Amino acid sequence: MRMLVKISYHGGQFMGFQIQHHERTVQYEFERILKRMHQTFVRIHPSSRTDKGVHAIEQYFHFDTPLNIKPDKWEYAFNSALPKDIHVQSVEQIDEDFHCRYDCVGKKYRYKVYIDPERHVFEHDTKVQQKKPVDIDLMNQAAQHFIGTHDFTSFCSQKTEVQNKERTIYQSEVVETDDGFEFIVTGSGFLYNMVRVMVAYLILVGEGKRSGDDIHQLLEEKDRNKVPHTAPAHGLYLEKIYLDKAELIKEFGNDIKIYNKKSSENV
Amino acid sequence: MRMLVKISYHGGQFMGFQIQHHERTVQYEFERILKRMHQTFVRIHPSSRTDKGVHAIEQYFHFDTPLNIKPDKWEYAFNSALPKDIHVQSVEQIDEDFHCRYDCVGKKYRYKVYIDPERHVFEHDTKVQQKKPVDIDLMNQAAQHFIGTHDFTSFCSQKTEVQNKERTIYQSEVVETDDGFEFIVTGSGFLYNMVRVMVAYLILVGEGKRSGDDIHQLLEEKDRNKVPHTAPAHGLYLEKIYLDKAELIKEFGNDIKIYNKKSSENV
Repeated sequence: MRMLVKISYHGGQFMGFQIQHHERTVQYEFERILKRMHQTFVRIHPSSRTDKGVHAIEQYFHFDTPLNIKPDKWEYAFNSALPKDIHVQSVEQIDEDFHCRYDCVGKKYRYKVYIDPERHVFEHDTKVQQKKPVDIDLMNQAAQHFIGTHDFTSFCSQKTEVQNKERTIYQSEVVETDDGFEFIVTGSGFLYNMVRVMVAYLILVGEGKRSGDDIHQLLEEKDRNKVPHTAPAHGLYLEKIYLDKAELIKEFGNDIKIYNKKSSENV
Repeated sequence: MRMLVKISYHGGQFMGFQIQHHERTVQYEFERILKRMHQTFVRIHPSSRTDKGVHAIEQYFHFDTPLNIKPDKWEYAFNSALPKDIHVQSVEQIDEDFHCRYDCVGKKYRYKVYIDPERHVFEHDTKVQQKKPVDIDLMNQAAQHFIGTHDFTSFCSQKTEVQNKERTIYQSEVVETDDGFEFIVTGSGFLYNMVRVMVAYLILVGEGKRSGDDIHQLLEEKDRNKVPHTAPAHGLYLEKIYLDKAELIKEFGNDIKIYNKKSSENV
């Protein structure tokens, strides 16, 4: 049986999602529980592998099991054994040909920033501090330039291993909050560090140091050296995983371009 | 010169305030910076020693220094070198006969609880989960019974080392919040684990398992075995340190009993 698990986690105390020797990771916490239940190793397959410090409001993984346990019992078993910075929201049985990574057609991220010269200790690992004031309208206007299909070589880590760096952005906006702003971005997929490089550039725009009008040129140049900053991990939240084209169309309209990961490397 | 430092910290990643070998503590973070600046060891003296996981919205310490550095430069020096879960709010020079611990005439604590059968991962180390519903009015009525001068032997850790367990409580109330409730308590001083034992009892009252009317009897019996629970550390916040009698009188009225630590062990 293939089981689909919807989870959330606070990334502050994890060395990321993916298993690493002797490190605390989200994957390790689940595989430890599954090993105990199966008396053998069981691999989990997430929709996304978040980095050290990155949070997930919504994340999915699937695993295969011979155990005849009902979804709500799986949910209870996980939540009883998990540490308190991970929570299982739901478990359901799905088709054997479904794959969390390849059937993911889009992702939404949120990046949270507070503006204050004084440090907020109670948000030290959930929001990023911005000491100087920023022009949020200008940032939001700049963010619009990311919408559409572009090669994001200039806006990702140089360690990105995939060949095809073309991705489609459906939503890209900066909104004011009580204590600062949030950058919200939805796309077909994201390259390594992509959201954090985008938001770092937008903050420079907000400070008046870079221009939003240069974004198209920078995208065309495909040169990461022209976009030097990467914002810290702890402001980043994986907010939504789109496992169904219908959800994307409902939110962003009929005419959007949908990517099928099974025939591409658009992860 | 004696310097008074007002700080706040997120206790989640600390093994408490007080220095311990090879552990991350708030005291260690400051003494490490002071040692580097003085080229010799400098001791800090806090108003309160919070436990592992306990937070401080406001906490004070003092230290003596031969260095002729202005208060705002000390503030800058500390904040530049501190990790992001500690923040120095202010630094001021004070009289050499002032002592943070002995001149503390009162403390206010707040204990934060959310009510939800589902875990809130983003509050995993800042609020305590209460799965079952509680009667907040009943808890608040019960909380009133702690007000006044009592021997708190029944409501503190059996490891408490001080002989005199009499303390005066000026404020004790339970207020409803968006997602649960908070217990707010102000007193002349608090015994080891005292707030956590009090709130654990109040939660049992809220669940209908214990009665607020028994509190006076329990206080009189001076037997911790009759009050078995201690609520977790991570919901507890040291909210205010009263270093001046006038502040206490302003908040709680002229007729309150003020304790002077210099002539008692009321810490």
